[in-house]
Amino acid sequence: MNVLLTSVGRRAYLVDYFKEALGGSGKVVATNTIAETTGMFAADDAIVVPAAKDPAFVDSLLDVCQAHDVSLLCSLHDWEAPYIAASAQRFKEIGVCLVMPTLEIVNICLDKYKTFLFAERNGVRSPKTYLSEAATAEALLRGEVAFPLVLKPRWGQGSIGLRIVHGLAELASAYHSLNQEIKDGGFAHLADLDTSQIVIQECLIGQEYGVDIVNDLNGEFAACFIKKKLAMRAGETDSAITVEQPMIESLSRQVAAATRHPGNMDADFFVLENGEAVLLELNPRFGGGYPFSHLAGVNIPAALIAWCEGIAPSHDWLTMALDVNGFKDVRVVGVPSRDQ
Amino acid sequence: MNVLLTSVGRRAYLVDYFKEALGGSGKVVATNTIAETTGMFAADDAIVVPAAKDPAFVDSLLDVCQAHDVSLLCSLHDWEAPYIAASAQRFKEIGVCLVMPTLEIVNICLDKYKTFLFAERNGVRSPKTYLSEAATAEALLRGEVAFPLVLKPRWGQGSIGLRIVHGLAELASAYHSLNQEIKDGGFAHLADLDTSQIVIQECLIGQEYGVDIVNDLNGEFAACFIKKKLAMRAGETDSAITVEQPMIESLSRQVAAATRHPGNMDADFFVLENGEAVLLELNPRFGGGYPFSHLAGVNIPAALIAWCEGIAPSHDWLTMALDVNGFKDVRVVGVPSRDQ
Repeated sequence: MNVLLTSVGRRAYLVDYFKEALGGSGKVVATNTIAETTGMFAADDAIVVPAAKDPAFVDSLLDVCQAHDVSLLCSLHDWEAPYIAASAQRFKEIGVCLVMPTLEIVNICLDKYKTFLFAERNGVRSPKTYLSEAATAEALLRGEVAFPLVLKPRWGQGSIGLRIVHGLAELASAYHSLNQEIKDGGFAHLADLDTSQIVIQECLIGQEYGVDIVNDLNGEFAACFIKKKLAMRAGETDSAITVEQPMIESLSRQVAAATRHPGNMDADFFVLENGEAVLLELNPRFGGGYPFSHLAGVNIPAALIAWCEGIAPSHDWLTMALDVNGFKDVRVVGVPSRDQ
Repeated sequence: MNVLLTSVGRRAYLVDYFKEALGGSGKVVATNTIAETTGMFAADDAIVVPAAKDPAFVDSLLDVCQAHDVSLLCSLHDWEAPYIAASAQRFKEIGVCLVMPTLEIVNICLDKYKTFLFAERNGVRSPKTYLSEAATAEALLRGEVAFPLVLKPRWGQGSIGLRIVHGLAELASAYHSLNQEIKDGGFAHLADLDTSQIVIQECLIGQEYGVDIVNDLNGEFAACFIKKKLAMRAGETDSAITVEQPMIESLSRQVAAATRHPGNMDADFFVLENGEAVLLELNPRFGGGYPFSHLAGVNIPAALIAWCEGIAPSHDWLTMALDVNGFKDVRVVGVPSRDQ
């Protein structure tokens, strides 16, 4: 069987994991909006496709699936997820196992306000989140939150645009300037323009953990893999260690039961000083922290291929060694020559 | 012969380049303030040493050199350079080839105001640079510069703390807030506290190039390797292509003749729209862009080892193929087991 990784970008390591999992019995095909990335170089076949917001995007992916006899599709970029999720039926019709949550769940993942409402609804603690200065002022009066507060683009990624404010005047000026920055910078191309582009959140301090929440392709919980983040660099995890964390595992199971996503969901949690675990963020795809799990013996690519073939995955692939400490290593590579 | 890389950090690739250049005829020893980095894992011997500002720092490096029979020492961190340069004689006395400019040149590299004065003195165009609001206001009146202007920590690295200002009021408030940030954040631990911690610079827009300016160990110009930066990510070059650029080559030769540094000096240049080349920055060491030259056939580690042994390096090691396009690749690795 052949596997398609869409928006492969720089994730050459994932291409290699899938190649190893296939063991020569199929190809790894990659798509991306630009050809010159390490992920594209690593793939067996690399095809440039339009950007997600281009009306031709989904058709071009469907064409790639048919031309390359693709059985399994994993998307690696948040911003294309809604377009693929909205066309799930079309992929199913041509026999592609789509590793993508429903559109409803994708929209929850991408929208920090919906993530908060989703967490509350499912009994998972998450930072209190508001859409307006007025709603925040009321919550402050009720004693529901206190300064400092964090402002973020509602549909943003990582810590881009993040501001911390310590009082109402600062909140007003940060709200205004972030709003302007979002308008100028186009953070919010997935946004509903009729509503606030900004979330105002409780500022929680704690130890951060990254989690792979894995369901089978029917959305049944299979496993979760928890890594304590030891060092960050430029917004990405530079070093992490695999751990047991029963509180986070329990919340991850609750998330998995509510999302029923197929495959891997990337989640970020904090554990506060009082021991409470808090859900920070959900990404509807393999996260940048997956290689830390893979290093500890996990093999989600192999499990996905097995599920897609209707086979039970090996128990080993869904078992993580504890206390495995991984480090990001940076190398420079050239454009490889392709076999013709 | 054995080679010592100090402050090796995450530069596992440099450890490997030196290992390959030695071809088993010697060890690569690494020091760092923390043991858990990819560079330390890659080294044959890895020794934790105190931070550069610790009075025991230089003695500990001298001890490592003697205990491990080190013949060649390359430092990989700006902030330790002045301490090593100030003790150059002590390394020479125990037979170590020190790949480090004189203290005077190190101080020019680390101080953006001294870099500007050095460039002016040597007929190399560099962004006009001022130390105070008053000096900047006078230069504006003279028509020497115009807004926008850039504020940076004088002893800073990369673009940390960088602010762009469009008028005098904005300049005053940015100067004040950056000053406060520097006081709080400790950017300036190499700084002369009696003077301004901030430089105010002409804001130049152009294509950026990274250059390895290589002298032999007597400070005679050997070669320079010019790379056009194609993509940046989190302040680091993500993709670059090797090029010929006669203007930058000519300025690099002028810099090399003035610094007479041994080994590799990392330089950043802009080429402006009018074709003029401008020196932005000098780093007294291997830069993060060196792997792009190495990918194109350059082998400075092999040349340094040859020079240290009193042998002429192969012409090939100082020759770069053009049009070689390199890309940073990120992987996660574990802590390797060491042979006992």
